[in-house]
Amino acid sequence: MTTAIDVAAEVIALERAALDRWGQGDPSVYLALFADEITYFDPAQEQRVDGAAAMAALFAPITGKIRVDRYDLLRPLVQQHGDTALLSFNLVSYRTDGGRERAISSWNATEAYRRTPQGWRIFHSHWSFIRPELKDANPETA
Amino acid sequence: MTTAIDVAAEVIALERAALDRWGQGDPSVYLALFADEITYFDPAQEQRVDGAAAMAALFAPITGKIRVDRYDLLRPLVQQHGDTALLSFNLVSYRTDGGRERAISSWNATEAYRRTPQGWRIFHSHWSFIRPELKDANPETA
Repeated sequence: MTTAIDVAAEVIALERAALDRWGQGDPSVYLALFADEITYFDPAQEQRVDGAAAMAALFAPITGKIRVDRYDLLRPLVQQHGDTALLSFNLVSYRTDGGRERAISSWNATEAYRRTPQGWRIFHSHWSFIRPELKDANPETA
Repeated sequence: MTTAIDVAAEVIALERAALDRWGQGDPSVYLALFADEITYFDPAQEQRVDGAAAMAALFAPITGKIRVDRYDLLRPLVQQHGDTALLSFNLVSYRTDGGRERAISSWNATEAYRRTPQGWRIFHSHWSFIRPELKDANPETA
């Protein structure tokens, strides 16, 4: 029997493996994890991106251009229900240039996995910046 | 038997009911939808917010201060697996002042619902701005 702890460890390990390669400029591990029906948000898109083919097209032009030297994956939590496992975490990415390390981005991240005969696959992904600097602090309560 | 179409219509209707009241300054419909174990991201928080009690504390100071006169809920999609239904959509909020309507915010939204004996409840929520204006356009590929 697979326990909830096993599932949490497994999806966090999958996410770390994908992040490790992402930071080296290689989105292929993420692309291999995406289910065909993936739905995806990140801060640079005008609207939700739907489907594995659209994700391959989205990541093609940034392949080889991403560089993250180190990251802190903070407070990962897996909420499992049946054959789904929703992983959420905060992430801080760092680069080191000239011997000096600096944080380059801070993220809220949601990765919804589902179990398939081929292993866990991401069917929904949502990445956003923590406290982006805006002209209006909170437009709906201003 | 409940069909996938029924489930999608049901969770979208719940979300719209919560949004309608939110726009009137009342977060109570959202609070009533949150499962005890909710995990939550929005652009103003330093990290993930965990638990229904923390959400009540988060929304208390903005109660009565939110005003959205109209919204467009765009391309809602429900991905159902067993007793979970992950709703994702884009949202544009508007206010009308002096007879002139203007968009005040544009969102990526993820709402992960699970079926409970009391009805559908949100166990994970992620709200982020579409294309927030930043000092650095894309810090990881710069």
